[in-house]
Amino acid sequence: MTMRGRGKTLPHTLRRNKIVSQSIGIHKSEIDTPALLIDLDVMESNIRFMADFFKGRPATLRPHFKTHKCPIIAHKQIEAGAIGITCAKLGEAEVLVECGIKSILIANQIIGIEKITRLAALARHADMIVAVDAASNLYDLSKAAQAFGSEIGVVVDVDVGMGRCGTRSIDEAVALARLSLSLGNLKFRGVMGYEGHCVFIHDKQERTEKCHLADSILVKAADAIRQAGIDVEIVSGGGTGTYDITGEYPGITEIEAGSYVFSDARYSGVIGQFKPALSILTTVISRPEQDIVITDAGLKTMTSEFGMPVLRGIKGAELIKLSEEHGKIHLERDIPELKTGDKVEIIPSHGCTTINLHDYYFGIRADRLETVWKVAARGKIR
Amino acid sequence: MTMRGRGKTLPHTLRRNKIVSQSIGIHKSEIDTPALLIDLDVMESNIRFMADFFKGRPATLRPHFKTHKCPIIAHKQIEAGAIGITCAKLGEAEVLVECGIKSILIANQIIGIEKITRLAALARHADMIVAVDAASNLYDLSKAAQAFGSEIGVVVDVDVGMGRCGTRSIDEAVALARLSLSLGNLKFRGVMGYEGHCVFIHDKQERTEKCHLADSILVKAADAIRQAGIDVEIVSGGGTGTYDITGEYPGITEIEAGSYVFSDARYSGVIGQFKPALSILTTVISRPEQDIVITDAGLKTMTSEFGMPVLRGIKGAELIKLSEEHGKIHLERDIPELKTGDKVEIIPSHGCTTINLHDYYFGIRADRLETVWKVAARGKIR
Repeated sequence: MTMRGRGKTLPHTLRRNKIVSQSIGIHKSEIDTPALLIDLDVMESNIRFMADFFKGRPATLRPHFKTHKCPIIAHKQIEAGAIGITCAKLGEAEVLVECGIKSILIANQIIGIEKITRLAALARHADMIVAVDAASNLYDLSKAAQAFGSEIGVVVDVDVGMGRCGTRSIDEAVALARLSLSLGNLKFRGVMGYEGHCVFIHDKQERTEKCHLADSILVKAADAIRQAGIDVEIVSGGGTGTYDITGEYPGITEIEAGSYVFSDARYSGVIGQFKPALSILTTVISRPEQDIVITDAGLKTMTSEFGMPVLRGIKGAELIKLSEEHGKIHLERDIPELKTGDKVEIIPSHGCTTINLHDYYFGIRADRLETVWKVAARGKIR
Repeated sequence: MTMRGRGKTLPHTLRRNKIVSQSIGIHKSEIDTPALLIDLDVMESNIRFMADFFKGRPATLRPHFKTHKCPIIAHKQIEAGAIGITCAKLGEAEVLVECGIKSILIANQIIGIEKITRLAALARHADMIVAVDAASNLYDLSKAAQAFGSEIGVVVDVDVGMGRCGTRSIDEAVALARLSLSLGNLKFRGVMGYEGHCVFIHDKQERTEKCHLADSILVKAADAIRQAGIDVEIVSGGGTGTYDITGEYPGITEIEAGSYVFSDARYSGVIGQFKPALSILTTVISRPEQDIVITDAGLKTMTSEFGMPVLRGIKGAELIKLSEEHGKIHLERDIPELKTGDKVEIIPSHGCTTINLHDYYFGIRADRLETVWKVAARGKIR
């Protein structure tokens, strides 16, 4: 989509300088750029589609906050049926608790005195569950929870083939479950394992086979813990690319998908059910040659580790380079709507890291600005 | 460098939750992670080295703010001899003006009514100079400056071979200079051209030759404008990789280098004069296999478009993968100091985009925390 810029002449009355807040109701072509736009209809449809999938199934949905980092979206996911929220960082969990979310899985190890102290304190205000893959961590968590008189839920992180964190054997997983039961102020809740090595496999059959293998590792760990006489409530896994595989695998209780809320250029190529809801609105700042267009959005506005972002609705034009503050578009044909001052929408290739560059979302419906939302947990890396 | 974590046991008195501010004076190993560290001695030495280069030379230094985005560092650069500051975005310029910087070159086109209005208003408070490569933009800038009763300085942006923004011919450059003189409340200041295609060429001779070619294009444009009877005060170019080439080229008046203040893994390979002053402090959160270490810093903490960031001072270990929130380190030998809870420093491969992910710098001297500085212009993309 291209939009004619309306900035060629100044209005008679100079408008108030609006750096962040924009006038609700304006046409999206009037939003200053670069800006991170949400197509609200598409986002709501994605949230509904995923929630509907889990209605009537044994598994439930605990969407991942690391994608959108925006509390109101988390609340919308819960209203649609999600049982709680997953997040990656303790700093994200603090934002969630502050905004009224009551059940939070931190799908990650929380290590070090500063963070464990914060987690134990936070657990007084919400049901906190954290991933663990080492005995020493369980001791630290228990001591802190005792000091605060809180209770921390733990799930044993099981490596299901991705080769990142997580126990590498069933025996280890059982031993950690046992240990957690013996320590004060911890509550063993179950197991988690993320099949990140499967979510982007294009071929559905291959994705299904590899994913089933990963799921079987996780469910076997849960079964072994049950055989040791320990109750396993949570068996958590899954991402946007595998929600309908892991989500139907017997024994899985929760899915952690995050990206589905917006999809992005990469996920759209794998999972057609979810439509891209996110775009970067950018302005043409130079048209130095007939076939070259330069925009005001580069690597400080969108990321490229999953490939080049994609122009929305423009044929015969391609984003070929991102430098820090510029995008370079090559035209195969003359496109008169790409003059200096015109605006262009670009679909991010990786939503999660792109969103993390922005302070605000601009929510659009029927081409009008409906809302401005803070990316409240942006930069919450600690 | 590795540091033993001190987080294995909790202190008797639970410390106050310090999410952002850290206790000044603590050892750097006690800083919560991930954290963006500055080695203050190295940074100050880099600032001094660059400033000393320009003492007694015709060219002067106007360092680029887009790298550090931190006003106190800009002031240190000016104290060392810089004549003003260069920046990429209007939002950065607003931060600079707010912090007392008086002479600012926005080395970029400012397009659209919102921004042009802001620029014209800002020009009442500081000497603002902006790059221009189109006649329509000059008209817009002039109208806005007249409305505010301010004066906007302009430099004509000349493409010197990078193929991004900028005029493609000397005639165009002369025509824009002439036009700017005829329009109210604009002040023609000169020309600028960035040889971004030269700054990373490893071979010094090749870099010098290509850079001289770029410099000659810029100086020829300046000469042609002078031949048209127009005074040219500013001839601005150069980056960290070419400061000592463009900085000595006859006719160049200002250098826009930015990255030198911290250097980074990529620049260190090209320009040995500046030492890496920046690192990411990260914690080992899992040691799932003997040769695999997982840290708490991924793509939301450091960027990889210039290649993998580099571990500082650890032999036989390599950062092999960054996912969103994790770094994966492969060990060629057993390194006992890389256990869960231990801390590791990583040198970014691209400082500018890495800094843009962080809200705070932690300034270190003699291994102690001396200061916490806000990355004040982080996210100022508009």
